[in-house]
Amino acid sequence: MLLQIALDDAWEISASVARAVQSSIDIIEIGTPLIYHEGMAIAHRLRREFPRHIILADLKIMDAGETEASIAFEAGCDIVSVLAVAHPSTVLGTIRAARRFGKRVMADLIQAPDPVESCRKLIDMGCDIVCVHTAHDIQSQHTTPLQSLQRLRQVLPDAPLAVAGGISASTIDDVAAWAPRIVIVGSAITGAADPAGAAQEIRNRMDAYAHI
Amino acid sequence: MLLQIALDDAWEISASVARAVQSSIDIIEIGTPLIYHEGMAIAHRLRREFPRHIILADLKIMDAGETEASIAFEAGCDIVSVLAVAHPSTVLGTIRAARRFGKRVMADLIQAPDPVESCRKLIDMGCDIVCVHTAHDIQSQHTTPLQSLQRLRQVLPDAPLAVAGGISASTIDDVAAWAPRIVIVGSAITGAADPAGAAQEIRNRMDAYAHI
Repeated sequence: MLLQIALDDAWEISASVARAVQSSIDIIEIGTPLIYHEGMAIAHRLRREFPRHIILADLKIMDAGETEASIAFEAGCDIVSVLAVAHPSTVLGTIRAARRFGKRVMADLIQAPDPVESCRKLIDMGCDIVCVHTAHDIQSQHTTPLQSLQRLRQVLPDAPLAVAGGISASTIDDVAAWAPRIVIVGSAITGAADPAGAAQEIRNRMDAYAHI
Repeated sequence: MLLQIALDDAWEISASVARAVQSSIDIIEIGTPLIYHEGMAIAHRLRREFPRHIILADLKIMDAGETEASIAFEAGCDIVSVLAVAHPSTVLGTIRAARRFGKRVMADLIQAPDPVESCRKLIDMGCDIVCVHTAHDIQSQHTTPLQSLQRLRQVLPDAPLAVAGGISASTIDDVAAWAPRIVIVGSAITGAADPAGAAQEIRNRMDAYAHI
Protein backbone atom coordinates (compact mmCIF):
# COMPACT_ATOMS: atom_id res chain seq x y z
CA MET A 1 0.00 0.00 0.00
CA LEU A 2 1.52 3.30 -1.11
CA LEU A 3 1.10 6.69 0.54
CA GLN A 4 0.66 9.68 -1.76
CA ILE A 5 0.92 13.25 -0.53
CA ALA A 6 -1.18 15.76 -2.44
CA LEU A 7 0.62 19.10 -2.65
CA ASP A 8 -1.85 21.86 -3.47
CA ASP A 9 -0.16 24.98 -2.08
CA ALA A 10 2.27 27.21 -3.94
CA TRP A 11 5.83 25.95 -4.43
CA GLU A 12 7.66 27.20 -1.33
CA ILE A 13 5.08 25.76 1.06
CA SER A 14 4.68 22.54 -0.93
CA ALA A 15 8.42 22.00 -1.24
CA SER A 16 8.96 22.39 2.49
CA VAL A 17 6.18 19.89 3.23
CA ALA A 18 7.61 17.41 0.70
CA ARG A 19 11.05 17.66 2.33
CA ALA A 20 9.56 17.13 5.79
CA VAL A 21 7.53 14.04 4.90
CA GLN A 22 9.71 12.39 2.27
CA SER A 23 10.71 9.38 4.36
CA SER A 24 7.05 8.45 5.01
CA ILE A 25 5.65 8.75 1.51
CA ASP A 26 5.98 6.95 -1.81
CA ILE A 27 4.24 9.27 -4.27
CA ILE A 28 4.47 13.05 -4.53
CA GLU A 29 1.37 14.47 -6.17
CA ILE A 30 1.62 17.81 -7.92
CA GLY A 31 -1.93 18.88 -7.09
CA THR A 32 -4.10 20.70 -9.63
CA PRO A 33 -3.80 24.10 -7.87
CA LEU A 34 -0.01 23.72 -7.75
CA ILE A 35 0.00 22.97 -11.51
CA TYR A 36 -2.06 26.13 -12.07
CA HIS A 37 0.44 28.09 -9.97
CA GLU A 38 3.64 26.78 -11.48
CA GLY A 39 3.04 24.66 -14.56
CA MET A 40 5.13 21.58 -15.26
CA ALA A 41 8.38 23.36 -14.40
CA ILE A 42 7.55 22.09 -10.92
CA ALA A 43 8.01 18.49 -12.07
CA HIS A 44 11.62 19.16 -13.07
CA ARG A 45 12.33 20.68 -9.66
CA LEU A 46 10.67 17.82 -7.79
CA ARG A 47 12.42 15.23 -9.97
CA ARG A 48 15.83 16.74 -9.13
CA GLU A 49 15.11 17.01 -5.43
CA PHE A 50 13.31 13.67 -5.00
CA PRO A 51 14.90 11.30 -7.52
CA ARG A 52 13.55 8.12 -5.93
CA HIS A 53 9.93 9.14 -5.38
CA ILE A 54 7.10 8.52 -7.81
CA ILE A 55 5.78 11.84 -9.13
CA LEU A 56 2.13 12.17 -10.11
CA ALA A 57 0.70 15.17 -11.97
CA ASP A 58 -2.96 15.62 -11.06
CA LEU A 59 -3.85 17.08 -14.45
CA LYS A 60 -7.46 15.80 -14.28
CA ILE A 61 -7.38 15.55 -18.07
CA MET A 62 -10.77 16.15 -19.72
CA ASP A 63 -9.72 16.53 -23.38
CA ALA A 64 -6.69 16.25 -25.67
CA GLY A 65 -5.51 13.27 -23.62
CA GLU A 66 -2.40 12.38 -25.59
CA THR A 67 -1.15 15.97 -25.88
CA GLU A 68 -1.80 16.94 -22.28
CA ALA A 69 -0.41 13.75 -20.74
CA SER A 70 2.74 14.08 -22.85
CA ILE A 71 3.47 17.51 -21.36
CA ALA A 72 3.67 15.95 -17.88
CA PHE A 73 5.59 12.85 -18.96
CA GLU A 74 8.14 14.96 -20.84
CA ALA A 75 8.61 16.98 -17.65
CA GLY A 76 9.51 13.81 -15.75
CA CYS A 77 6.23 12.75 -14.14
CA ASP A 78 5.56 9.06 -13.66
CA ILE A 79 1.76 9.11 -13.46
CA VAL A 80 -0.89 11.50 -14.77
CA SER A 81 -4.57 11.61 -13.89
CA VAL A 82 -7.44 11.62 -16.37
CA LEU A 83 -11.10 12.15 -15.46
CA ALA A 84 -13.38 9.12 -15.65
CA VAL A 85 -16.07 11.42 -17.06
CA ALA A 86 -13.86 12.33 -20.04
CA HIS A 87 -14.74 10.81 -23.42
CA PRO A 88 -13.26 7.31 -23.89
CA SER A 89 -11.15 8.71 -26.76
CA THR A 90 -9.53 11.06 -24.26
CA VAL A 91 -8.82 8.27 -21.78
CA LEU A 92 -7.35 6.15 -24.58
CA GLY A 93 -5.19 9.08 -25.76
CA THR A 94 -3.87 9.52 -22.23
CA ILE A 95 -3.03 5.80 -22.09
CA ARG A 96 -1.29 5.98 -25.51
CA ALA A 97 0.97 8.73 -24.19
CA ALA A 98 1.72 6.71 -21.05
CA ARG A 99 2.66 3.63 -23.05
CA ARG A 100 4.91 5.69 -25.32
CA PHE A 101 6.81 7.06 -22.30
CA GLY A 102 6.66 3.83 -20.28
CA LYS A 103 4.57 5.61 -17.64
CA ARG A 104 1.20 5.22 -15.89
CA VAL A 105 -2.35 6.57 -15.88
CA MET A 106 -4.61 7.11 -12.87
CA ALA A 107 -8.29 7.56 -13.74
CA ASP A 108 -10.22 9.71 -11.28
CA LEU A 109 -13.82 8.65 -10.58
CA ILE A 110 -14.82 12.09 -9.29
CA GLN A 111 -18.42 12.79 -10.38
CA ALA A 112 -18.65 9.50 -12.31
CA PRO A 113 -22.37 8.61 -12.24
CA ASP A 114 -21.79 4.83 -11.97
CA PRO A 115 -18.41 4.25 -10.28
CA VAL A 116 -18.46 0.44 -10.53
CA GLU A 117 -19.28 0.31 -14.23
CA SER A 118 -16.92 3.20 -14.89
CA CYS A 119 -14.08 1.51 -12.99
CA ARG A 120 -14.56 -1.71 -14.93
CA LYS A 121 -14.41 0.12 -18.27
CA LEU A 122 -11.38 2.20 -17.27
CA ILE A 123 -9.43 -0.91 -16.28
CA ASP A 124 -10.48 -2.65 -19.51
CA MET A 125 -9.24 0.37 -21.48
CA GLY A 126 -5.85 0.06 -19.79
CA CYS A 127 -5.84 2.52 -16.90
CA ASP A 128 -3.25 1.43 -14.35
CA ILE A 129 -4.99 2.80 -11.27
CA VAL A 130 -8.55 3.95 -10.62
CA CYS A 131 -9.07 6.55 -7.92
CA VAL A 132 -12.16 6.73 -5.71
CA HIS A 133 -12.39 10.42 -5.00
CA THR A 134 -14.72 12.53 -2.90
CA ALA A 135 -14.51 16.09 -4.19
CA HIS A 136 -12.96 18.66 -1.88
CA ASP A 137 -16.03 20.82 -2.42
CA ILE A 138 -18.42 18.27 -0.90
CA GLN A 139 -16.29 17.06 2.00
CA SER A 140 -17.99 19.64 4.21
CA GLN A 141 -21.22 17.73 3.53
CA HIS A 142 -19.73 14.81 5.51
CA THR A 143 -19.31 12.75 2.38
CA THR A 144 -16.32 10.39 2.44
CA PRO A 145 -14.88 8.05 -0.18
CA LEU A 146 -15.20 5.05 2.15
CA GLN A 147 -18.57 3.77 0.95
CA SER A 148 -17.51 3.95 -2.70
CA LEU A 149 -14.25 2.18 -1.88
CA GLN A 150 -16.12 -0.62 -0.11
CA ARG A 151 -18.59 -1.08 -2.96
CA LEU A 152 -15.84 -1.13 -5.58
CA ARG A 153 -13.69 -3.54 -3.58
CA GLN A 154 -16.59 -5.92 -3.09
CA VAL A 155 -17.45 -6.00 -6.80
CA LEU A 156 -13.88 -5.77 -8.14
CA PRO A 157 -11.69 -7.52 -5.55
CA ASP A 158 -8.46 -7.19 -7.56
CA ALA A 159 -8.92 -3.69 -8.99
CA PRO A 160 -5.90 -1.41 -8.50
CA LEU A 161 -7.66 1.29 -6.50
CA ALA A 162 -6.52 4.58 -5.07
CA VAL A 163 -8.60 6.55 -2.60
CA ALA A 164 -8.73 10.29 -1.92
CA GLY A 165 -10.89 12.79 -0.14
CA GLY A 166 -10.40 14.03 3.38
CA ILE A 167 -8.43 10.99 4.64
CA SER A 168 -6.65 11.54 7.97
CA ALA A 169 -5.08 9.59 10.83
CA SER A 170 -8.54 9.16 12.34
CA THR A 171 -10.02 7.52 9.20
CA ILE A 172 -7.00 5.69 7.76
CA ASP A 173 -7.77 2.40 9.54
CA ASP A 174 -11.23 2.16 7.98
CA VAL A 175 -9.79 3.01 4.57
CA ALA A 176 -6.76 0.71 4.73
CA ALA A 177 -8.94 -2.26 5.67
CA TRP A 178 -10.35 -2.17 2.11
CA ALA A 179 -6.95 -2.65 0.55
CA PRO A 180 -6.44 0.32 -1.74
CA ARG A 181 -3.12 0.23 -3.62
CA ILE A 182 -2.67 3.94 -2.98
CA VAL A 183 -3.91 6.17 -0.17
CA ILE A 184 -3.90 9.87 -1.05
CA VAL A 185 -3.68 12.37 1.80
CA GLY A 186 -3.70 16.13 1.46
CA SER A 187 -4.64 18.63 4.14
CA ALA A 188 -4.42 16.12 7.02
CA ILE A 189 -0.66 16.26 6.40
CA THR A 190 -0.05 19.59 4.65
CA GLY A 191 -2.29 21.45 7.10
CA ALA A 192 -0.95 19.71 10.24
CA ALA A 193 1.10 21.60 12.79
CA ASP A 194 3.69 18.82 12.35
CA PRO A 195 3.43 17.44 8.78
CA ALA A 196 6.27 14.94 9.31
CA GLY A 197 4.60 13.51 12.40
CA ALA A 198 1.19 13.38 10.73
CA ALA A 199 2.60 11.56 7.69
CA GLN A 200 4.51 9.09 9.87
CA GLU A 201 1.42 8.29 11.93
CA ILE A 202 -0.63 7.56 8.81
CA ARG A 203 2.24 5.49 7.37
CA ASN A 204 2.48 3.42 10.57
CA ARG A 205 -1.22 2.68 10.53
CA MET A 206 -1.08 1.72 6.86
CA ASP A 207 1.84 -0.61 7.49
CA ALA A 208 -0.32 -2.62 9.86
CA TYR A 209 -2.28 -3.62 6.74
CA ALA A 210 0.79 -4.28 4.61
CA HIS A 211 -0.01 -7.99 4.43
CA ILE A 212 -3.06 -7.22 2.28
CA MET B 1 -20.17 38.52 -31.12
CA LEU B 2 -16.68 38.11 -29.68
CA LEU B 3 -13.81 36.12 -31.16
CA GLN B 4 -11.67 34.12 -28.77
CA ILE B 5 -8.36 32.60 -29.77
CA ALA B 6 -7.42 29.42 -27.92
CA LEU B 7 -3.67 29.26 -27.38
CA ASP B 8 -2.60 25.70 -26.65
CA ASP B 9 1.06 25.66 -27.68
CA ALA B 10 4.03 26.53 -25.49
CA TRP B 11 4.67 30.21 -24.73
CA GLU B 12 6.96 31.31 -27.58
CA ILE B 13 4.65 29.95 -30.27
CA SER B 14 1.48 31.13 -28.50
CA ALA B 15 2.87 34.61 -27.88
CA SER B 16 3.82 35.08 -31.50
CA VAL B 17 0.34 33.98 -32.65
CA ALA B 18 -1.30 36.33 -30.13
CA ARG B 19 0.77 39.25 -31.41
CA ALA B 20 -0.09 38.43 -35.02
CA VAL B 21 -3.86 38.19 -34.49
CA GLN B 22 -4.44 40.78 -31.75
CA SER B 23 -6.33 43.26 -33.91
CA SER B 24 -8.90 40.62 -34.96
CA ILE B 25 -9.66 39.05 -31.59
CA ASP B 26 -11.39 40.06 -28.36
CA ILE B 27 -10.47 37.28 -25.95
CA ILE B 28 -7.13 35.54 -25.47
CA GLU B 29 -7.60 32.05 -24.06
CA ILE B 30 -4.77 30.50 -22.11
CA GLY B 31 -5.55 26.94 -23.20
CA THR B 32 -5.30 24.01 -20.80
CA PRO B 33 -2.06 22.64 -22.33
CA LEU B 34 -0.48 26.11 -22.10
CA ILE B 35 -1.48 26.30 -18.43
CA TYR B 36 0.17 22.90 -17.88
CA HIS B 37 3.31 24.17 -19.61
CA GLU B 38 3.63 27.51 -17.89
CA GLY B 39 1.20 27.90 -15.00
CA MET B 40 -0.46 31.21 -14.27
CA ALA B 41 2.77 33.17 -14.72
CA ILE B 42 1.59 33.27 -18.32
CA ALA B 43 -1.39 35.43 -17.33
CA HIS B 44 0.89 38.15 -15.95
CA ARG B 45 2.86 38.18 -19.21
CA LEU B 46 -0.24 38.30 -21.38
CA ARG B 47 -1.80 40.99 -19.19
CA ARG B 48 1.27 43.21 -19.61
CA GLU B 49 1.52 42.64 -23.35
CA PHE B 50 -2.23 42.80 -24.13
CA PRO B 51 -3.72 45.24 -21.60
CA ARG B 52 -6.97 45.77 -23.49
CA HIS B 53 -7.85 42.17 -24.33
CA ILE B 54 -10.03 39.92 -22.21
CA ILE B 55 -7.96 37.02 -20.84
CA LEU B 56 -9.58 33.66 -20.19
CA ALA B 57 -7.90 30.81 -18.31
CA ASP B 58 -9.24 27.47 -19.54
CA LEU B 59 -8.75 25.79 -16.17
CA LYS B 60 -11.63 23.33 -16.75
CA ILE B 61 -12.18 23.32 -13.00
CA MET B 62 -13.50 20.01 -11.63
CA ASP B 63 -12.99 20.52 -7.88
CA ALA B 64 -11.94 23.17 -5.35
CA GLY B 65 -13.73 25.80 -7.42
CA GLU B 66 -13.14 28.80 -5.21
CA THR B 67 -9.45 28.06 -4.61
CA GLU B 68 -8.59 27.21 -8.20
CA ALA B 69 -10.50 30.09 -9.79
CA SER B 70 -8.85 32.53 -7.36
CA ILE B 71 -5.39 31.51 -8.60
CA ALA B 72 -6.30 32.66 -12.12
CA PHE B 73 -8.12 35.82 -11.04
CA GLU B 74 -5.20 36.83 -8.81
CA ALA B 75 -2.91 36.41 -11.82
CA GLY B 76 -5.01 38.89 -13.80
CA CYS B 77 -7.42 36.69 -15.76
CA ASP B 78 -10.91 38.00 -16.52
CA ILE B 79 -12.72 34.71 -17.07
CA VAL B 80 -12.12 31.14 -15.88
CA SER B 81 -13.76 27.95 -17.10
CA VAL B 82 -15.44 25.36 -14.91
CA LEU B 83 -16.72 21.99 -16.12
CA ALA B 84 -20.47 21.54 -16.32
CA VAL B 85 -19.97 17.99 -15.04
CA ALA B 86 -18.37 19.26 -11.82
CA HIS B 87 -20.43 19.09 -8.63
CA PRO B 88 -22.75 22.11 -8.21
CA SER B 89 -20.77 23.07 -5.09
CA THR B 90 -17.69 23.41 -7.29
CA VAL B 91 -19.52 25.58 -9.84
CA LEU B 92 -20.87 27.76 -7.03
CA GLY B 93 -17.40 28.08 -5.50
CA THR B 94 -16.01 29.19 -8.86
CA ILE B 95 -18.78 31.79 -9.12
CA ARG B 96 -18.09 33.00 -5.55
CA ALA B 97 -14.46 33.64 -6.50
CA ALA B 98 -15.53 35.48 -9.66
CA ARG B 99 -17.91 37.74 -7.73
CA ARG B 100 -15.22 38.51 -5.16
CA PHE B 101 -12.80 39.61 -7.91
CA GLY B 102 -15.47 41.23 -10.12
CA LYS B 103 -14.72 38.66 -12.84
CA ARG B 104 -16.60 36.05 -14.92
CA VAL B 105 -17.19 32.31 -15.20
CA MET B 106 -17.57 30.27 -18.36
CA ALA B 107 -19.11 26.83 -17.83
CA ASP B 108 -17.98 24.20 -20.33
CA LEU B 109 -20.62 21.67 -21.43
CA ILE B 110 -18.03 19.14 -22.62
CA GLN B 111 -19.34 15.63 -21.82
CA ALA B 112 -22.47 16.99 -20.11
CA PRO B 113 -25.08 14.24 -20.57
CA ASP B 114 -28.03 16.67 -20.99
CA PRO B 115 -26.68 19.96 -22.38
CA VAL B 116 -30.02 21.83 -22.35
CA GLU B 117 -30.88 20.99 -18.75
CA SER B 118 -27.27 21.52 -17.72
CA CYS B 119 -27.13 24.93 -19.44
CA ARG B 120 -30.33 26.04 -17.73
CA LYS B 121 -28.99 25.07 -14.29
CA LEU B 122 -25.60 26.69 -14.90
CA ILE B 123 -27.21 29.99 -15.86
CA ASP B 124 -29.54 29.79 -12.84
CA MET B 125 -26.51 29.22 -10.61
CA GLY B 126 -24.91 32.38 -11.98
CA CYS B 127 -22.52 31.30 -14.72
CA ASP B 128 -21.92 34.22 -17.07
CA ILE B 129 -21.32 32.20 -20.23
CA VAL B 130 -22.04 28.58 -21.14
CA CYS B 131 -19.80 26.96 -23.74
CA VAL B 132 -20.98 24.33 -26.21
CA HIS B 133 -17.85 22.31 -26.73
CA THR B 134 -17.00 19.35 -28.93
CA ALA B 135 -13.95 17.67 -27.43
CA HIS B 136 -10.73 17.84 -29.45
CA ASP B 137 -10.46 14.07 -29.08
CA ILE B 138 -13.72 13.38 -30.95
CA GLN B 139 -13.42 15.99 -33.69
CA SER B 140 -11.84 13.34 -35.90
CA GLN B 141 -15.16 11.50 -35.64
CA HIS B 142 -16.73 14.36 -37.63
CA THR B 143 -18.61 15.58 -34.59
CA THR B 144 -19.14 19.34 -34.49
CA PRO B 145 -20.69 21.63 -31.87
CA LEU B 146 -23.22 22.99 -34.39
CA GLN B 147 -26.12 20.66 -33.58
CA SER B 148 -25.77 21.30 -29.84
CA LEU B 149 -25.59 25.04 -30.45
CA GLN B 150 -28.77 24.93 -32.55
CA ARG B 151 -30.67 22.88 -29.96
CA LEU B 152 -29.60 25.14 -27.10
CA ARG B 153 -30.39 28.32 -29.01
CA GLN B 154 -33.86 27.04 -29.91
CA VAL B 155 -34.70 26.15 -26.32
CA LEU B 156 -32.85 29.03 -24.62
CA PRO B 157 -33.02 31.95 -27.09
CA ASP B 158 -31.32 34.45 -24.77
CA ALA B 159 -28.65 32.22 -23.20
CA PRO B 160 -25.13 33.70 -23.27
CA LEU B 161 -23.49 30.91 -25.28
CA ALA B 162 -19.96 30.32 -26.42
CA VAL B 163 -19.07 27.66 -28.96
CA ALA B 164 -15.85 25.70 -29.45
CA GLY B 165 -14.59 22.67 -31.29
CA GLY B 166 -12.94 22.67 -34.69
CA ILE B 167 -14.47 25.95 -35.90
CA SER B 168 -12.80 27.39 -39.03
CA ALA B 169 -13.42 29.89 -41.83
CA SER B 170 -15.38 27.20 -43.66
CA THR B 171 -17.81 26.60 -40.78
CA ILE B 172 -18.02 30.04 -39.16
CA ASP B 173 -21.09 31.12 -41.19
CA ASP B 174 -23.16 28.17 -39.98
CA VAL B 175 -22.03 28.81 -36.40
CA ALA B 176 -22.48 32.60 -36.39
CA ALA B 177 -26.04 32.28 -37.70
CA TRP B 178 -27.00 30.82 -34.30
CA ALA B 179 -25.86 33.93 -32.45
CA PRO B 180 -23.26 32.74 -29.95
CA ARG B 181 -21.86 35.53 -27.79
CA ILE B 182 -18.38 34.09 -28.17
CA VAL B 183 -16.82 32.02 -30.95
CA ILE B 184 -13.71 30.13 -29.89
CA VAL B 185 -11.19 29.20 -32.56
CA GLY B 186 -7.98 27.28 -32.04
CA SER B 187 -6.05 25.35 -34.65
CA ALA B 188 -7.84 26.97 -37.61
CA ILE B 189 -5.90 30.10 -36.64
CA THR B 190 -2.88 28.84 -34.67
CA GLY B 191 -2.16 26.12 -37.21
CA ALA B 192 -2.70 28.31 -40.29
CA ALA B 193 0.21 29.28 -42.54
CA ASP B 194 -0.95 32.88 -42.00
CA PRO B 195 -2.61 33.16 -38.56
CA ALA B 196 -3.29 36.89 -38.93
CA GLY B 197 -5.08 36.35 -42.26
CA ALA B 198 -7.04 33.38 -40.92
CA ALA B 199 -8.19 35.35 -37.87
CA GLN B 200 -9.15 38.37 -39.98
CA GLU B 201 -11.17 36.21 -42.37
CA ILE B 202 -13.13 34.63 -39.50
CA ARG B 203 -13.63 38.08 -37.92
CA ASN B 204 -14.98 39.50 -41.18
CA ARG B 205 -17.47 36.69 -41.54
CA MET B 206 -18.57 37.09 -37.91
CA ASP B 207 -19.05 40.83 -38.40
CA ALA B 208 -21.63 40.09 -41.08
CA TYR B 209 -23.77 38.75 -38.21
CA ALA B 210 -23.01 41.61 -35.84
CA HIS B 211 -26.61 42.81 -35.94
CA ILE B 212 -27.73 39.67 -34.06
